[in-house]
Amino acid sequence: MLNQWTIEAPAYELETALRAACDAKTKPLGSLGRLEELAIRLGLIQRTLSPDVQHPALLVFAGDHGLAKRGVSPYPQSVTTAMVRNFAHGGAAINVLSRELGWHLTLVNSGTLEDTSFPGVIDRSLGKGTRDILEGPAMDSSTYEQALQMGADLVRSCKAQGAQVIAAGEMGIGNSSAAALIAHALTDLPLERLVSRGAGCDDHQLKAKQAILASVREKHGPLGNPDAVLQHFAGFEMVMAGGAMLEAARLHLPFLVDGLIISSVALAVVKAQPQVLPYLIFAHRSSALGHDAILEHLGVKPLLDLDMRLGEGTGAALALPLLKCAVALLRDMATFDSADVARAEARLSLL
Amino acid sequence: MLNQWTIEAPAYELETALRAACDAKTKPLGSLGRLEELAIRLGLIQRTLSPDVQHPALLVFAGDHGLAKRGVSPYPQSVTTAMVRNFAHGGAAINVLSRELGWHLTLVNSGTLEDTSFPGVIDRSLGKGTRDILEGPAMDSSTYEQALQMGADLVRSCKAQGAQVIAAGEMGIGNSSAAALIAHALTDLPLERLVSRGAGCDDHQLKAKQAILASVREKHGPLGNPDAVLQHFAGFEMVMAGGAMLEAARLHLPFLVDGLIISSVALAVVKAQPQVLPYLIFAHRSSALGHDAILEHLGVKPLLDLDMRLGEGTGAALALPLLKCAVALLRDMATFDSADVARAEARLSLL
Repeated sequence: MLNQWTIEAPAYELETALRAACDAKTKPLGSLGRLEELAIRLGLIQRTLSPDVQHPALLVFAGDHGLAKRGVSPYPQSVTTAMVRNFAHGGAAINVLSRELGWHLTLVNSGTLEDTSFPGVIDRSLGKGTRDILEGPAMDSSTYEQALQMGADLVRSCKAQGAQVIAAGEMGIGNSSAAALIAHALTDLPLERLVSRGAGCDDHQLKAKQAILASVREKHGPLGNPDAVLQHFAGFEMVMAGGAMLEAARLHLPFLVDGLIISSVALAVVKAQPQVLPYLIFAHRSSALGHDAILEHLGVKPLLDLDMRLGEGTGAALALPLLKCAVALLRDMATFDSADVARAEARLSLL
Repeated sequence: MLNQWTIEAPAYELETALRAACDAKTKPLGSLGRLEELAIRLGLIQRTLSPDVQHPALLVFAGDHGLAKRGVSPYPQSVTTAMVRNFAHGGAAINVLSRELGWHLTLVNSGTLEDTSFPGVIDRSLGKGTRDILEGPAMDSSTYEQALQMGADLVRSCKAQGAQVIAAGEMGIGNSSAAALIAHALTDLPLERLVSRGAGCDDHQLKAKQAILASVREKHGPLGNPDAVLQHFAGFEMVMAGGAMLEAARLHLPFLVDGLIISSVALAVVKAQPQVLPYLIFAHRSSALGHDAILEHLGVKPLLDLDMRLGEGTGAALALPLLKCAVALLRDMATFDSADVARAEARLSLL
């Protein structure tokens, strides 16, 4: 259950001191904009005046979706397997970004249809893909609970290894359908505003996808709460990401949220546990249809907007330099006092 | 003269091959959005299928403005000196970002009022600040030519030391007034849309600044061309940045454009030499009033939008990881063929 986690409020009592530390730096007040807000936010989350983002850990969860057989994606399900192999060989976008930016990458088989026991892939498989949700819930409730715990356990390991920031990415043919259904069930947004082209639907395929998702919605009827919504529609990889998010918040770790898929999970988590929201740093605005609507519903503004829609955690990965810079500025910039930048009268006119 | 530089068109003949290289990567077509466009752009600029951004060089030009005595800034001119000292000591925002992101920083005294011969500051002083532009042109034409050449010479040195990407930042109390006047003279935008709060004008100071700039405009009347506009209104630090931009374009180096001040210079350069525009990569959207108008006038969309308005080159500096990631993705990602990601039918449905 999403509300089994006990999440403390960030250390708001430090906000005044953190803001004062930013304001003392040798720059016009507020002129570093969102980097200042980010430094303050990281301090509140980590409960310190010296936030840091050492040993960043990115968990990439892969899982298959029974619904994929119905033709919601132009890709065959074997692409999930092939991409996990690509991750294991270091050739995917998320590998390149992780090496370039310094993320420690953990690959997790959350439940792929085919064998993905490639070197470096951790096996947390909960089945050969979820059930076809045109026939019933994606998973039973005990499997759902297991998936949440597995995601949480992985974050505890990351923390034990020194991680000061967590992110999650995903791979799973069919999971943009799951994201649309989750967002539709938890908001009053029409399905049409939420169904994206996923990995590359053309107009005809998009129409077919919309029709299938409308049938799924009718089949399941209204679902009572975010747990039920995830259990009925999500993939194993998505529920594990949800557990990871919750555990990051419980452990006072900032969690960088990727694009459409992970944001739909964040929506469910926040609906169940609003206290998680301040721990989530939305990394980027995806160009996938539906992401904007979720962000707006949550009232959040992501850091980056680069017209990306790849998933894998690529959007989350790209925001790391901004976090690194934010904490470095807070830590290393001279203050007016230390730098003797401005004489008394200048400082008075400035502050 | 801005049009003394001979600027070649980027190597558009490579565009098809660069785009094909992006499309062959293991990802849905176009799903890396602006990172793909950036990789292609860097290839066109550097005339290669393997663009790179090793040894990034950031030139920070500092200069004073005679007009500052008139009260266009709430800061005294001594803040220029104090900030150059801060740069030399490594305590300013641009120092922190350069260390964090790997920029090689060069500090240049382009003409400060007070002595700024601190260790590490290169002396290219063209005077103790520009003339008060309420009384006459900021500088005479031979000084203007010298400033352009000095900026260009510094870029040639950077290139000789291996720099594959150039950026410029600036420091100069009063230079947001110069930026507003330049943009006003070169567009049909009203001064009111261009006069920012600079380093921190309050409402009263902003009104005074607007009035002073309106007087300056009347004093000088219409100016015939971008060279005349810069010579009459710009600071030495701004003209040197203009020379740097031109030389970067001439040498096929991408030039990252910072915020309001450097963008106003870019506007003048592009008005004189439209061929420079493809070499300019606009790094961020500043929250300083007027920047948006300049970007719109040039028809460009910056990479980042973080509500920053500090100058020093901080916005340009922050975009470097995006460039690094773009070239790394183009270089290192597996292709469909090499990774055997998708079987023939999947690939067909994808491409």
